[in-house]
Amino acid sequence: MQELLKSYPVVAKLPVIWGDMDSFQHVNNAIYFRYFESARIQYFEALGWMDIVDSLGVGPILGSTSCRYRIPLTYPDTVYAGAKITEMHEKRFTMEYLIVSEQHPETVAEGTGIVICYNYKKNQTTQIPEVVHQAIEKLEGRKF
Amino acid sequence: MQELLKSYPVVAKLPVIWGDMDSFQHVNNAIYFRYFESARIQYFEALGWMDIVDSLGVGPILGSTSCRYRIPLTYPDTVYAGAKITEMHEKRFTMEYLIVSEQHPETVAEGTGIVICYNYKKNQTTQIPEVVHQAIEKLEGRKF
Amino acid sequence: MQELLKSYPVVAKLPVIWGDMDSFQHVNNAIYFRYFESARIQYFEALGWMDIVDSLGVGPILGSTSCRYRIPLTYPDTVYAGAKITEMHEKRFTMEYLIVSEQHPETVAEGTGIVICYNYKKNQTTQIPEVVHQAIEKLEGRKF
Amino acid sequence: MQELLKSYPVVAKLPVIWGDMDSFQHVNNAIYFRYFESARIQYFEALGWMDIVDSLGVGPILGSTSCRYRIPLTYPDTVYAGAKITEMHEKRFTMEYLIVSEQHPETVAEGTGIVICYNYKKNQTTQIPEVVHQAIEKLEGRKF
Repeated sequence: MQELLKSYPVVAKLPVIWGDMDSFQHVNNAIYFRYFESARIQYFEALGWMDIVDSLGVGPILGSTSCRYRIPLTYPDTVYAGAKITEMHEKRFTMEYLIVSEQHPETVAEGTGIVICYNYKKNQTTQIPEVVHQAIEKLEGRKF
Repeated sequence: MQELLKSYPVVAKLPVIWGDMDSFQHVNNAIYFRYFESARIQYFEALGWMDIVDSLGVGPILGSTSCRYRIPLTYPDTVYAGAKITEMHEKRFTMEYLIVSEQHPETVAEGTGIVICYNYKKNQTTQIPEVVHQAIEKLEGRKF
Repeated sequence: MQELLKSYPVVAKLPVIWGDMDSFQHVNNAIYFRYFESARIQYFEALGWMDIVDSLGVGPILGSTSCRYRIPLTYPDTVYAGAKITEMHEKRFTMEYLIVSEQHPETVAEGTGIVICYNYKKNQTTQIPEVVHQAIEKLEGRKF
Repeated sequence: MQELLKSYPVVAKLPVIWGDMDSFQHVNNAIYFRYFESARIQYFEALGWMDIVDSLGVGPILGSTSCRYRIPLTYPDTVYAGAKITEMHEKRFTMEYLIVSEQHPETVAEGTGIVICYNYKKNQTTQIPEVVHQAIEKLEGRKF
């Protein structure tokens, strides 16, 4: 499990909630995007971005996302959702997500997210702020 | 069904969503509070309150709420959630909720909510604004 | 709006729920997968599949899904989520989803889902049942 | 915090999820019932009831529930939801819930739930099974 998550600088630990199972008695498909979101928000916090959204006037917007389901989850279990950034463009970057669980210490699900930088004052997409770019490189331990 | 909802000036119509059922194959208990909330928000809109929260600086806060479950709901169905105000105090009022459905044209669930007026500028509870009080009396067709 | 949804044999109509907005004051990204799911379930019902899952012993499982977000949704609004099948393989098929809304009569979001046929008795993937295949062709008005 | 939860034999530990905040930027009121449910299910597991629902043919149904909100919750935080049984009748019992959090080590919210014993084979309410009654007395450390 730790081997699988090794390349993910941020990992959110989340209990599987009984009420997140649907009438097929598995965790509902939409909940995996909640897991991805939790990892993504934790990643942005690790960058220090959430604290400067207001002063920068530039925040992240989710442009698209996907999930591939490999093993159904059931309560009780604990999920580990890893997030990493694998590609950087001028105005957007690509995140990859991986979910493993204590009951299933293998790839339970994997996903992607395209995050777009948005200037809330000008209401338009904008370049990734230099301070955010540098924080990502530091967190990922590589240059983009 | 119309008879049951007659005394409720606001009724929210909501489809039962398949994904709102839990692994007992009924609509999950927490979703009923989502139904109540939808009726409550629609009631505040009918009062015109939502448009003046910012200018008044006074908005509603939910202090407590309850639900009594009578008939389990399943997909597919359509829910009607009625809301009315039954008591007014200086700084708070009591709402009552009733849920009926197309599959169950009787009392599916009933609930209450205590709503508190809050001054967001002063961070303290405050009196029900006169304009809101009057709008409630007009909507309910009675004096409090 | 009708033009956009013309090629979708199933369209789910869903109100935007106030409580589905997150603290960015837009409908949360995970809720779009709830919309897709509602359209997907309604599609399976139109096929008559849901009624024969038990007797067939073969049901649908979501293998992967994706969403591209184009316009943020806010309360109040009403969403129309279209679903169609665009590709059929031996054991799986591809659905495409489109979301438009009354406030935004254009492409609000689009998505995909890979649905896998699963034999619940043998616990393995299986061929699309002939009766389901034929119902899909009839609903889509084309041969696969 | 430990003092407050001392009388609760079961305490569920749950992270506050960013996506559980609504557009008022607090954890949505319906989510508290998800917290109560998590504590309730964990309580039933501690009794060993969940394992024998099928063989007993008798399971728990939520008859009514309530919540009083004292302090708004925000992300990030961790919630502790305590559950205890305070009253036993022939066919139903009363649970009390208490929520405290790491950011707010005081009473964040408190609630109640009336749980009814239901015979799924006969489709009617029934007596609390003796084995469940005894497990409750053992867990609570008192006679009812």
